[in-house]
Formats: sequence, C-alpha cells, structure tokens
Amino acid sequence: MRVIITKNYEELGKVASQHLLGTMFASQERVNLAITAGRTPLEVYKYLVPEVKDKNYLNHVHYYNFDEIPYKDNKQEGITIADLRRLYLNPANVLEENIHVLDGENYENQDNRIQNDGGLDSILLGVGADGHYCGNLPNTTTVNDYTSKVTFEDNPDLEQVIIDHFIDPKDAPDFYVTMGPRSIMSAKQLVLIANGREKSGIMKSFIEGEITPDLPVTYLKLHPNLVVIMDEEAASELN
Amino acid sequence: MRVIITKNYEELGKVASQHLLGTMFASQERVNLAITAGRTPLEVYKYLVPEVKDKNYLNHVHYYNFDEIPYKDNKQEGITIADLRRLYLNPANVLEENIHVLDGENYENQDNRIQNDGGLDSILLGVGADGHYCGNLPNTTTVNDYTSKVTFEDNPDLEQVIIDHFIDPKDAPDFYVTMGPRSIMSAKQLVLIANGREKSGIMKSFIEGEITPDLPVTYLKLHPNLVVIMDEEAASELN
Amino acid sequence: MRVIITKNYEELGKVASQHLLGTMFASQERVNLAITAGRTPLEVYKYLVPEVKDKNYLNHVHYYNFDEIPYKDNKQEGITIADLRRLYLNPANVLEENIHVLDGENYENQDNRIQNDGGLDSILLGVGADGHYCGNLPNTTTVNDYTSKVTFEDNPDLEQVIIDHFIDPKDAPDFYVTMGPRSIMSAKQLVLIANGREKSGIMKSFIEGEITPDLPVTYLKLHPNLVVIMDEEAASELN
Amino acid sequence: MRVIITKNYEELGKVASQHLLGTMFASQERVNLAITAGRTPLEVYKYLVPEVKDKNYLNHVHYYNFDEIPYKDNKQEGITIADLRRLYLNPANVLEENIHVLDGENYENQDNRIQNDGGLDSILLGVGADGHYCGNLPNTTTVNDYTSKVTFEDNPDLEQVIIDHFIDPKDAPDFYVTMGPRSIMSAKQLVLIANGREKSGIMKSFIEGEITPDLPVTYLKLHPNLVVIMDEEAASELN
Repeated sequence: MRVIITKNYEELGKVASQHLLGTMFASQERVNLAITAGRTPLEVYKYLVPEVKDKNYLNHVHYYNFDEIPYKDNKQEGITIADLRRLYLNPANVLEENIHVLDGENYENQDNRIQNDGGLDSILLGVGADGHYCGNLPNTTTVNDYTSKVTFEDNPDLEQVIIDHFIDPKDAPDFYVTMGPRSIMSAKQLVLIANGREKSGIMKSFIEGEITPDLPVTYLKLHPNLVVIMDEEAASELN
Repeated sequence: MRVIITKNYEELGKVASQHLLGTMFASQERVNLAITAGRTPLEVYKYLVPEVKDKNYLNHVHYYNFDEIPYKDNKQEGITIADLRRLYLNPANVLEENIHVLDGENYENQDNRIQNDGGLDSILLGVGADGHYCGNLPNTTTVNDYTSKVTFEDNPDLEQVIIDHFIDPKDAPDFYVTMGPRSIMSAKQLVLIANGREKSGIMKSFIEGEITPDLPVTYLKLHPNLVVIMDEEAASELN
Repeated sequence: MRVIITKNYEELGKVASQHLLGTMFASQERVNLAITAGRTPLEVYKYLVPEVKDKNYLNHVHYYNFDEIPYKDNKQEGITIADLRRLYLNPANVLEENIHVLDGENYENQDNRIQNDGGLDSILLGVGADGHYCGNLPNTTTVNDYTSKVTFEDNPDLEQVIIDHFIDPKDAPDFYVTMGPRSIMSAKQLVLIANGREKSGIMKSFIEGEITPDLPVTYLKLHPNLVVIMDEEAASELN
Repeated sequence: MRVIITKNYEELGKVASQHLLGTMFASQERVNLAITAGRTPLEVYKYLVPEVKDKNYLNHVHYYNFDEIPYKDNKQEGITIADLRRLYLNPANVLEENIHVLDGENYENQDNRIQNDGGLDSILLGVGADGHYCGNLPNTTTVNDYTSKVTFEDNPDLEQVIIDHFIDPKDAPDFYVTMGPRSIMSAKQLVLIANGREKSGIMKSFIEGEITPDLPVTYLKLHPNLVVIMDEEAASELN
C-alpha cells in the first residue's frame, strides 16, 4: 500500500488524474479503466476532462462502471452511468464504443467480459464514511463475491438510500448491482481517493485499523498495488 | 487467480520451476524470491537445482525464508533455513550473500528489509491440509498481521507440533516466527503448489469454498497475481 | 544487452527454453512469440516440446514465423513453416489457430497483423556466420525495412542458396520474405542464440565489434531488452 | 514508435509532463529519469514543476543529465546541469541527493553508474534541426558509442558552437561529454519532443525518412518503446 497525502482536494484531483493518465500512456495496447461516480472524483475529472477531450491518442482507453442503480423497468440508463457520462464521459468526448456499461441485466457477465477484454488496468474508487466502496456496503456483499445483485429483501435499510437517488420514487428499483470484492481485487492497480473531514474517521480506520467485514473497504489493503490518495483533511485523524 | 492442473507431481515440479526461472530471467536487476521448505517443493527443487547450480548469470537472484522455528537459545540455525539449505540453497550453490535469513531475533525488521530490498518478486508457497500457509495456522495470525511471533502461550495446541521438529525436545523454542498475511500479499506474484490426495480436500475448499479465517490460505485468493499449480490428485475433488 | 555464456549446447537449449517458458507464464493474456527454424534451435525445442505438448494451460501462446522461402506457385507450405512444424509445432501439438503463418502472399500485412495482435512479446532468433538474422542477409534489407520481399534480381548470389533448400530445384521461388530490422526491433524482447565453434567469429564481431550494415545482426545490439545466449564454443574468441 | 501530435506547444508540454509523471507514479521503487535542458522542454517543466515541487511522495525519483559542456578548469558547474537546475531542479526543489551529475571528469563511469542504479526508466530528449540529440551531433559520435568525450580537435566546426554557450569565451572547454547512442538506447523508454516550425524539416526526415548517420536521431526509431510528441507546427510537413 502506498499512501499519498495531498495538501488539499485540488492536489488530490491532480495527483489522481496523473495516476490515471500515467496508466493510459503506459501502453499502446488497449487500457481498461473502471472509474467512480459520486462527489469524491469531481476534482479528478476537472483535471482529467481537458487532457482527454478529443485526444485521438487516447482512443485505446476503455471505460467501465463498477456498480449501477438501474431505473425500474429500465426506462432510462442507470444512475451511475448517467452520472459518469455527465461528469466525465460526455465532457471528455469519450467514444461510445469505448464505454462498457454495467447494468441491471448484464451484471452476471461483467467478470467474464472484463477478463476477455484483458482485465482492468486500474480502478479509481472512493470510500464511504461507513466503509463501503463501489456497491459493497456492510452486510450486502461478502469478500467472496464477484459482480452481484444486491436486493432490498436482504437489506431493508438500503431501500431509502436507493430511493433517494431518484426524483420520482416510483422509478426506484428493488436492487442494485456491483462488482464485488473478488472482481475489484483482480485489477492490476487500485487508486483509492478520499477527501474532506467527513472521511477522516474512515481513513483512520482504514489506515490504522483492522481488516473487518464491518468496513468492507479494509480488505483492499490486501492488494499489492494499492495507491491511497487523500487530502490533509481526510488524513487529519491519522497518528 | 490462474489455476494450472498438472498430470502428476513431476509435472508440477517442472511447471513451478519454470515459473521461478521465468521470474529470475525476467529482469537483469535484483530479483527477490521467498521460497518454501517442507515436502511439497521437493520435486520443484529437483528440477531447479541443476538449472541454478553454479550459474553465474543467476547471481542477481536473492532468497528469503518466510517463516522459522528457531532453536532454543539459538544454538544453531533454525529448522526452516536449515531445511532450505539442505534442499535447495546448498545443492544449488547459492551465494551466501544472496541468502537473507529470517530468524527468531530479526523478525520485526523483515517487512522493512524486504521493502528496502525492492519487494518480493515471487513467493513459492505450499498449503497445509488444515488451510495454513507459511506459519499462518488457523488461530495464530490474523489477516491483519505482518511478520509476527507466534507463541504457545496463545496457542497451546502448537507446542507438540513444534517439538516434533526437533530430535531433542529440549531444543524446541516456545515460539516461531512467520511472515503474516499482509507481508505475503505484498509480493508481486504468489505461486501456490499442492500435490497428492491428502491435499484434495483443502484444494477443493480453496478453489470452490469461501474465504474464511478458519482456512487462512483462502485469503490468498484476493491476490491479483496468484498462480495455483496442483497435480491431478490434489485436484481430484474439484467439480 | 545481457550475455549468458553456457557451458555447452545442451545448457544453451535449457536456458533458452526457460526464457521462452518464462515469457509464456508471465501473462494470462495472449502471448505472441516469433521463433526460428534451422539448426541452432534444435536443442531448445528438444527441451521445449515436452513442456508445451498437450498443456492446455499454454493455449494463450501464439506463434509466428519471421521469414519464409515459399514454394514456387505455392504448391505447398514454405520451407520455414514446414521446418517449424516438424521441429516444434507438430511435436508440441500447438493448436492450429495459434499458428500465424507468414508466407509469400501475406507479407505486406505482417507488421500490421502483429501490431493488431498486441505485438510480439519475444523473438527467438539465431545468427549466421555471415552476420544475417531472419532473412536479413548483408545487402538484402536495410535497417529501415519492415517485412519485405527479397528478390534474386537484386541479389543474384542468393539464388543458389535458396535453390539448395529444395529437393527439386524447379520448386524454388525467385524471392523470399522476411521481417525486417524495424519489425524485429519492435518486439518487447529479443533472445539471440548461437552455438558451436563455427559461430565464434560472428559472435566476437557481434559482442566486441561495431554496428555495421555488413553484419546486419549487429543492429540488434541497440535493443534495450536483448538476451544473448551462447555456448562456450561460440564464445571462444571473446576477449 | 508511437507518435502523438498535439495541437500546440502548450499541449505538448502537458502530454510530455503526463508521461513523466506516469513513469514516476508507476513504481514505488527508485525511478531514474534523464532529462533535457534547452528550449524545447520549457513548456514541459512549466507543467511539471508545480506537480513535483515539495512533493515528498516523489522522493523516489532520481535525475540524470545526459550531456554536459563543462567550464574550463571546472571553475563552476557545467552549462547543462546549471540549465537543468535553473529550469527544473531548483524550482521543483528536487533533493540534492537525487541529482546525479554527469560532468567532464566522471563521464567514463556514467554507463556503469546508471546500470548499477537500476537503469534509466525514461529519457526526455529533444532533437536539433541538424538531427542531433543529446550531444550526438553528426560526425561526432557513432551509433557504437556509449558515454563519450567529443573534442574539437576532431570536430573543428563545433568550437564556435560551444564557445557561444559562454559569456566569457575564455571559460569554454575544448571538449564536451554526452551519453552516446548505445547509452540512450538502453533506457526502458524514450520520450522525444519537438515543437515549432523550425523542427518541421527534421521531423519529416525523422518520421518518413531513412535511418542514417547523417541524422543521428533517426537511430532512435529502432527503440521498441519510443514515444514521439510533437506539436502541429513540428508535424506540418508530414504526409
């Protein structure tokens, strides 16, 4: 595990985007990246978008989403991919053929597809204050899982969390899908980013605490090529 | 995880030695290997010794033991390194300066030393029918541990196991040392070998079962560059 | 450049086969190798064939020939690929779909094809006493060439050399094809083998002499990942 | 060879700095870079300096100059290293222990030193309108040379060129030193940059023309991991 503590969120965005660009430029062959939606990567994409936009020399880079909350009845693309399009894929003008959508239908094929595509070269992921990463929340998946469907039947607490993602609650599905711990740990590199004081508790647990199913993200510490990038606020509780 | 099933133990020995030689030849810079003692690697070393012996073009390869049962009062070198010298390091005429001994005294420095030496390029390891690997037996270390001392105080059942390694029971120590799960998972590659019908149960659990602290070896499935080499007998219970 | 001097031809065969097996096992993704026909690799294939034969865990390895003397009117497969089939591909039971034949018709597409296949991971090649490698004989190709057709019109001295490859001289073509210096230098690794006293002169020139178009092989010294394996006889004139 | 054509010099600076940062972040072990002085890299260093300055997570990156025009009698540090300090090493606050100076005295040890340090991971280099790179001008070094001393005795035309680098002509030496073609080709990656209309002729020759001693830079086309980054002006004569 390599830990990089940046002075602020802006530097985090730069350093994470430099890691991703480094992976993109490291090979002339196809490069496969899974990238995160949500708030944490905003500053990453701010730096990344102009460097990638309309750059035909990056046409060998392919993108995957690693989780998805689909619309009920698939009336439109899911929450995650829509977010990724808005934040990064659209402003960066990424070729549609380089975008490999995980959705509520095709999730059982996600691990095979990625393996056939050559495996993931890097995953950019965030961490929740509750210790979740991707859709691996406490008590949903286990460390044994590959890409999985998580239903509310088994996780009633999640229902409201999911509904909150939708303007019209009637659009909310009764499940979501996520690449599981086994899927994520198969990538050649993991880049975990965390910023802000609200992440200082989980980052202290992550760096100094034990690996535990209560905080699914802690298992990522077992990856031999994990880079953790956090700003000083997220690192503020570390000894 | 890549799984290679060989027709017999002899082929296992060849394929594992080819993996190790491949790692040795892959770089002109220093290559660091941790290798296992015990019965499983006998056929590996049978093939490896003549390929390595007196080959000055392999002088960039360095060796580490990953666990040790020291003699009480250090009256002579420990059980593991003595075994490795007998099985491989001596017959292969490995330079003494390329042998980096882990013992009962220096174990707290093992992880730092390896990191400063550039990290381990590969670890050759076996698995016990009880699911242990290196000295990580059930209920000794946890997945959180780096190189550790395991005492009988905490593990009374181990005392007889350790004593059995010594001709004179009075030479037995009251602890052993082992690289822990965190140490092992930091290597760039893991090569896990298993042969014979007596390993068929644990290999079924390893390949098809869940990751569990009851079988410490199962955590190795989370490593992105794990090669499992087993003969047909060890694979005989797989579905 | 890394130089490995082996005690004899047998050790050369082992060490070269270990390099090739190391490259095969280094990746779970497709591995692309170009390999040489002729006499020099006989001892390499002797060791390699039993390690590769019917090993389904090596089905990700693909093979290319790097030069070809086609039969006139293509009445049967060319001299080189027939030789490779006899020496290695047939006895090793390599899958037909993993064999990518260069011939007198498709040579103009060879470099594109290889690039689209992900590039060559390694090339095993020999050297002639006249300093040629592949079909790059003095005064045929230049260092600027990619895969090329070499005609006798331009190289009248070659006619008899080529005819000698055929039982019936009427089968001899009026050209051959070869991957050129630019094609060869694009590979990730080059493994150059030389054995016997009849190669001692060229190996002295290769190792100690200058890079010169008179000895096309000398340009290979500019490759950052070149491994030269020669036996003591081939090395006998070195200072 | 990979060719990246950027819209302008600013984008060239960004893309080249992304390549260098990618190499820096690709390893936690020591990373060795040789970098160029002169005008071409100005825009590279403009982007690189703030990303490297006072970043302790880049303390594993070491720097080398690849040529030097020393002051007569060594009255002060040479022209190249002084330039590198002014343009990059000082503003980026690179640790003095990470700067490995090539000078008029130690040049014979440069290749050994770099090999012992683990080899160069990347070289950033420019190209002259006359086809030179580093100090490899036409008729100075040959493709066979490692790090060399170039004297004016052998190259009278160079004398004025060298003198022009000094405010006081009396400070000019009667030689300079440069890593030669063999030294440069040993690096794992080469990043060649060219900008502006005054480089359009040499870039046309480089990309479309032949490998020739008259344009020493053309030999770099034989490197399997060469990235050429040029702006549209430098690319303006390409077909």
